[in-house]
Amino acid sequence: MKNLLEKLFPINRSLTGDGNRETLRQIQEIIPLEIKEIPSGKEVYDWKIPPEWTIRDAWIKNSSGEKIIDFKKSNLHVVQYSEAVHQTIKFENLKKNLHFLENLPNAIPYRTTYYQKKWGFCLTFNDFQNFFEENEKYEVFIDSDFNENGSLSYGELLISGEKKEEILISTYICHPSLANDNLSGIVLTTFLAKWLLSKKNYYSYRIIFVPETIGTIAYLHENQKKMQKINFGCVVTTVGGQGKFGFKKSFDENHFINFLAEKSLENFDKKYISYPFDIFGSDERQYSSVGFRINTISITKDKYYEYPFYHTSLDNLDFVKAENIEKTLDVYKKWISLVEMNRIYKNKIAFGEVMLSKHDLYPKNGGAFLPESHLTELDLIQWILFYSDGKTDLVEISKKIDAKLEDLFFVAEKLKGKNVLMEI
Amino acid sequence: MKNLLEKLFPINRSLTGDGNRETLRQIQEIIPLEIKEIPSGKEVYDWKIPPEWTIRDAWIKNSSGEKIIDFKKSNLHVVQYSEAVHQTIKFENLKKNLHFLENLPNAIPYRTTYYQKKWGFCLTFNDFQNFFEENEKYEVFIDSDFNENGSLSYGELLISGEKKEEILISTYICHPSLANDNLSGIVLTTFLAKWLLSKKNYYSYRIIFVPETIGTIAYLHENQKKMQKINFGCVVTTVGGQGKFGFKKSFDENHFINFLAEKSLENFDKKYISYPFDIFGSDERQYSSVGFRINTISITKDKYYEYPFYHTSLDNLDFVKAENIEKTLDVYKKWISLVEMNRIYKNKIAFGEVMLSKHDLYPKNGGAFLPESHLTELDLIQWILFYSDGKTDLVEISKKIDAKLEDLFFVAEKLKGKNVLMEI
Amino acid sequence: MKNLLEKLFPINRSLTGDGNRETLRQIQEIIPLEIKEIPSGKEVYDWKIPPEWTIRDAWIKNSSGEKIIDFKKSNLHVVQYSEAVHQTIKFENLKKNLHFLENLPNAIPYRTTYYQKKWGFCLTFNDFQNFFEENEKYEVFIDSDFNENGSLSYGELLISGEKKEEILISTYICHPSLANDNLSGIVLTTFLAKWLLSKKNYYSYRIIFVPETIGTIAYLHENQKKMQKINFGCVVTTVGGQGKFGFKKSFDENHFINFLAEKSLENFDKKYISYPFDIFGSDERQYSSVGFRINTISITKDKYYEYPFYHTSLDNLDFVKAENIEKTLDVYKKWISLVEMNRIYKNKIAFGEVMLSKHDLYPKNGGAFLPESHLTELDLIQWILFYSDGKTDLVEISKKIDAKLEDLFFVAEKLKGKNVLMEI
Repeated sequence: MKNLLEKLFPINRSLTGDGNRETLRQIQEIIPLEIKEIPSGKEVYDWKIPPEWTIRDAWIKNSSGEKIIDFKKSNLHVVQYSEAVHQTIKFENLKKNLHFLENLPNAIPYRTTYYQKKWGFCLTFNDFQNFFEENEKYEVFIDSDFNENGSLSYGELLISGEKKEEILISTYICHPSLANDNLSGIVLTTFLAKWLLSKKNYYSYRIIFVPETIGTIAYLHENQKKMQKINFGCVVTTVGGQGKFGFKKSFDENHFINFLAEKSLENFDKKYISYPFDIFGSDERQYSSVGFRINTISITKDKYYEYPFYHTSLDNLDFVKAENIEKTLDVYKKWISLVEMNRIYKNKIAFGEVMLSKHDLYPKNGGAFLPESHLTELDLIQWILFYSDGKTDLVEISKKIDAKLEDLFFVAEKLKGKNVLMEI
Repeated sequence: MKNLLEKLFPINRSLTGDGNRETLRQIQEIIPLEIKEIPSGKEVYDWKIPPEWTIRDAWIKNSSGEKIIDFKKSNLHVVQYSEAVHQTIKFENLKKNLHFLENLPNAIPYRTTYYQKKWGFCLTFNDFQNFFEENEKYEVFIDSDFNENGSLSYGELLISGEKKEEILISTYICHPSLANDNLSGIVLTTFLAKWLLSKKNYYSYRIIFVPETIGTIAYLHENQKKMQKINFGCVVTTVGGQGKFGFKKSFDENHFINFLAEKSLENFDKKYISYPFDIFGSDERQYSSVGFRINTISITKDKYYEYPFYHTSLDNLDFVKAENIEKTLDVYKKWISLVEMNRIYKNKIAFGEVMLSKHDLYPKNGGAFLPESHLTELDLIQWILFYSDGKTDLVEISKKIDAKLEDLFFVAEKLKGKNVLMEI
Repeated sequence: MKNLLEKLFPINRSLTGDGNRETLRQIQEIIPLEIKEIPSGKEVYDWKIPPEWTIRDAWIKNSSGEKIIDFKKSNLHVVQYSEAVHQTIKFENLKKNLHFLENLPNAIPYRTTYYQKKWGFCLTFNDFQNFFEENEKYEVFIDSDFNENGSLSYGELLISGEKKEEILISTYICHPSLANDNLSGIVLTTFLAKWLLSKKNYYSYRIIFVPETIGTIAYLHENQKKMQKINFGCVVTTVGGQGKFGFKKSFDENHFINFLAEKSLENFDKKYISYPFDIFGSDERQYSSVGFRINTISITKDKYYEYPFYHTSLDNLDFVKAENIEKTLDVYKKWISLVEMNRIYKNKIAFGEVMLSKHDLYPKNGGAFLPESHLTELDLIQWILFYSDGKTDLVEISKKIDAKLEDLFFVAEKLKGKNVLMEI
C-alpha cells in the first residue's frame, strides 16, 4: 500500500491524459482492471467529453532568466487544462493569472479550468512575495495542447459473486499530486478489490476508477442499462487523513446500508463524524440523480471540504500514510461483510413451531447469552423463525429484537443448513 | 371597502329573501357575480329549501300606544323566520317570546327559527327592564309571510386560470346586521375576487356567496359534479374584528394548505391563534363531509364563537372596520400566492447532473445567501434538480431543506425557463 | 366455579390420557363441549402425536418397606411420561432420577419427559433430606405404559354469532394438579363460554381446550382451513393468582385488541403489568407463526414464569381462589364487550350534513356532557357522521376525538336505528 502510494503520488492526473492511463496501468499490476476509453467530443447526457489535455512543461522566469516557478517541481503549479502560452509580460498583467492562498502561505493551491480556455499558475503566497515585484517583466511558458481526437480513460473490474445483483464501488482518479483527495481513495479501492478477489462473495462487485463528475457521467451514459443491476454502493474518497472517521449517508437515510455503515464504524471508533446526505459532494451527485437513484455512502478519514490542507500541496504524503488508509479499509471491509449478511429468509415450516430437537437444533447451552448480547442462541432461533416470512430482512429483525446482525446471520445459516429456513 | 361595508350593513339578510338579492346586487357592482335561485320546496340531499320569508314591519306598542320595540330601528329585533302576528297580549304571555341577554344588557341578541313556526322579538336587557311591566298588556305586530313559490338566492363567480383545477372560496350571506359575522366575510371575499380578476392566475377560482348550511348544501347539490374539480378551498368568516388573527385547520391536518396558511400568518403576525379542525363551525361542515372531503381552511380575525359580541347587535361597525378586514385580506392574498407556487416539476435531464454553465444557470453570486435564508441560489438549483422526480412538490422540498417556498418557486421557474425542468 | 376448581384439581392431566378426557367430561356438564381425538402417531406439521401415556401407580419404598414417595398423594411426584420401572437401586444411582428445588424446600417441582424415554420422581427438598441416605437402597416402582394406538384429546365449542367471523378463545389442559397454570385458565374459559352462550353475540366464538404446544399444533393441523375465519383471539392462562393483573400483547402491537385490552384492564385496575409480545410463552407461539399470524392476547393474574410457585406443588388451591378467577373473568368479559363494539359504519347521507331534527336525532340535552367525558352526545353524533366513511372503525374514531368506545357505539347504533348510518 505504501509502495503504491509512493509510485502514484507524483503522476500528473487530470480529467484526461496519459497520467490517468499510467495510474490505471500501475493498478493493473495489483488487480485485473480493464482500461477503457471514451472519445473526446462524445455527448454524454448533458455533457460532452472534453479534448484530451497534454502538458509537457511549464515555468515562469524572472528578468534574470531564473526559473522561479517550475511545473517539474510540482504539477500543482499549473492550472489544469491551461492552454499553451509563451510570452514576456509585465507583473500587472501576469498577476491575474497567479493563484495563491494568503491564509496558507506555504501551500500551492489546486486549480482547474476545464470549461474555459485560460492559462494560469499556482504558487505559495511566500513565493509570490519573494519572487515577484511590481513593474518587473516575466517570461511565462506553458507547453500544452488539446487533442480533439483524444479520449477520457477509466478503469473497471467486475467481480462476480453468488448473486448477479451488484454493489458499486466507485473512486475518482482526476486529481494530480493530492494525497488524501483522492490518491488515498484510489489506493484503498485497489486493496479492497484485491481482498474481494481473494474470497467468495455473495454479491457481485463493480469497481470503477473514473474521473469525477464528467467521467462518472460518461461512465453512466455508457453503462446505463447495467446500472439497473446495482443495488447500492459507495464512493471512496479522502480516506487517509490523520483526523477522524466521517460517514456521509446516502440519500435515503433509512436504507440499511446507512445503518450498517454506522455499525461498522462503531466497531472501530464510536467518535466518528456523521454527515447527512448533501447533494454537494462527490460522485453520489451522479448516482443519486433522478434517473439512477442509487444509494451510495462514503466513509472518510478527513473528509473533503473539512481539512485545512484540502486542495493544496500540503495534502501530501506527510499528511497521508498507508496505515491511515488501512484503518479506513478495515471499516469498508466490515461494512461489506455486514452488507453481505443482510439476507431475507422464509421459514419452511410456516405452520406452528419447528420441533427443534427433531432437527438437532436445540442449542447445547440454550440458556447461555451470546457474547456481548442479552440474547441466547435459542432466542435468536425462535425470533428468526417467527419473523422469516420471506419479506423481512435480517437488519429489520436485528432492530426489532436488538440483536447483532452477525449473530442472526450465523443462526439463520445454521437453520438453513438444517433445511428449516430457505433464503429468498 | 368602507363604502361597501356601510352600504351592506343595514340590509336585512336571512336564509332567503330580497335582502340577500340586494346584497348580491351590490356586490355585482364590484365583481361580475352571477345571481342564481333555487326554488323553495326543492329537496337537496337530506334537506329541503324552505319557503321564502318576507318581513315588512314589526313592533311592540305599550298600552299608551308607544312603539317600544321597532324593527325599523334594528332588524335584529325580530326572530328571523317569525310568522305574522297581530294581537294584544298580557306580559305573562308575551314574555316567553322575548329574547335578551342579562350578561350584555346593551346588546340585542340574534335569533332564528328556521324550522319551527314561531314568532319572537329580541331586545336589550335594559329595554326589557325599562319598557315592560308585569300585568300590563302589549300590542305585538309582525307583518311577515312565507312564500312556497319563492327561492333561495346565491352568487357565484368562476375566474378561469391557467389550470382547470379549482380553488373554492366560500362565504355566507344569511346574517342580517351583524358586522363581523359575516358582513366582514362578504366584503373580504368581494375584494379578494376583485384582486384575482386583476391578475393572471394559475388555478381557477370558484367564489360563492351563499346562505350558511342549507344554502351551501343546496349549492353542493346543484353542483355536485363540478365539485370534483375543486382541489381545496377556504371558508371566509369573521375576518374584521379588532382582536387576534385565528387559523382553523382543514380536516387533513397534513394538507399543505394548512402549512401554507401558517406561513402566511407568520408573515404578518406570529401570535395568531391556531384552532384544530372541528366538525362544529361554518360551511367546512358541508365541504368536509364524507361525500365531498374538500379541505378548507379559515383565517379569521376574532373568530365566531370566540368574541363577546358574537351574534349580538354589538357586532356592528364600531367593532368592525375596513382596515381590519384589509389586514385579513392581505393574509388571504399571501396564502393564495403561496398556494399557487406549490407546483411539481420533473427534471428533464434526469440522468446525472445538469451542466449549469451550458444552460447559463450558474448563479453570478453562487455563494451569496438568499435574503433571510441559510441557502444560496446554487443550493436551491441543485436540490430542486435532485428532488424533482415528477412527484415531489415544492412544499415537500421546502420542508426537507428548510427553504422558503417563494425562493424555490423563483428558482424552479428559472430552471423551467431554461428548459431543464418541466412542470407536471 | 369453586366447585369446578375443586373437582378438576386432583385429576392427573398430561399431553394425552384419561385425565384429560375426564377433565373435558366435567366441563361438558357446564357447556356443550365436543370432545375430539387425534390418533397417536399422526404427523401434524413438524410434529407427531406421541403415544398415549397411562400411569396407574408409582412409589419409592425405603429398605424398611415404607413408601416414602407416593404418586397417590400427589400426581406431581412422577415425571410426566415416565416409562415403567420396578427395581431396587442404590441411592447413588437413584439420585439422578430425583428432582427437587433447594430454593423452595416445601415444593414438589413439575417435570416432563415427553420426547425422551426416561423415568423420574419429583419431591420436596425437605423429603429428599429426611428420607434419603447415602449408601442406602430403595425400591422404585412406576406402573405406566405407552399406547401407540391411543390418541390426544381436545374439547371444542363453536358459538355462532351474528357474523361468521370468529374470535378464538384457547386454553390448555395438559397440566396435572397445578392450580394457576393452568386449571385457572380451564375454569375461566368454561365460565366465559357459559356467559357467551347466555347472550346474543356479534361475532362467533371458537373455544378450545387443548394440550399446550403439540396439542395446539395438532388442532391447527386438523382445522387449518377454518382458521382463516379467525379474526383474532386470546390464550387464557394463569388467571387466578393473588398478585397483579398482567397483559401480554399480541404480535402486532397496534392491533386494536391490544388497545381494548388496556381499556378493559384500566376499567378494573390501573396498576396491571404490561408485557410486550414475546415469542416465548404459551400457544400464541403457534397462532402467531408465519402460516397463521393470528393475533392473540393474554390477560393474566400472576403470569406464568413470574410467580414463585410456578410449576410446583405450591401452585395449589391455597394460592388460587375462585374469586380471583372471577376478577380476571370480568376483565375478559369487558374485553369481549368492547371488541364487539368496534364496528365500521358508513354514513348513508354522505353529501353534506344530516338534518338531525328531521330524523329525530337532535339530543334533548345536546349540551350536556356524557358521563366521564368532555364530549356531548351531539359531539359524538357529528364526529361519527363525519368519520363514517365505511373504512374507519370506532376505535380509530375514539382515538381521534378521545371518546369512550361504549359511548360511540351507543350513539352509532342510534344513528343506525334511524337509518342514517349503515354497518359495514
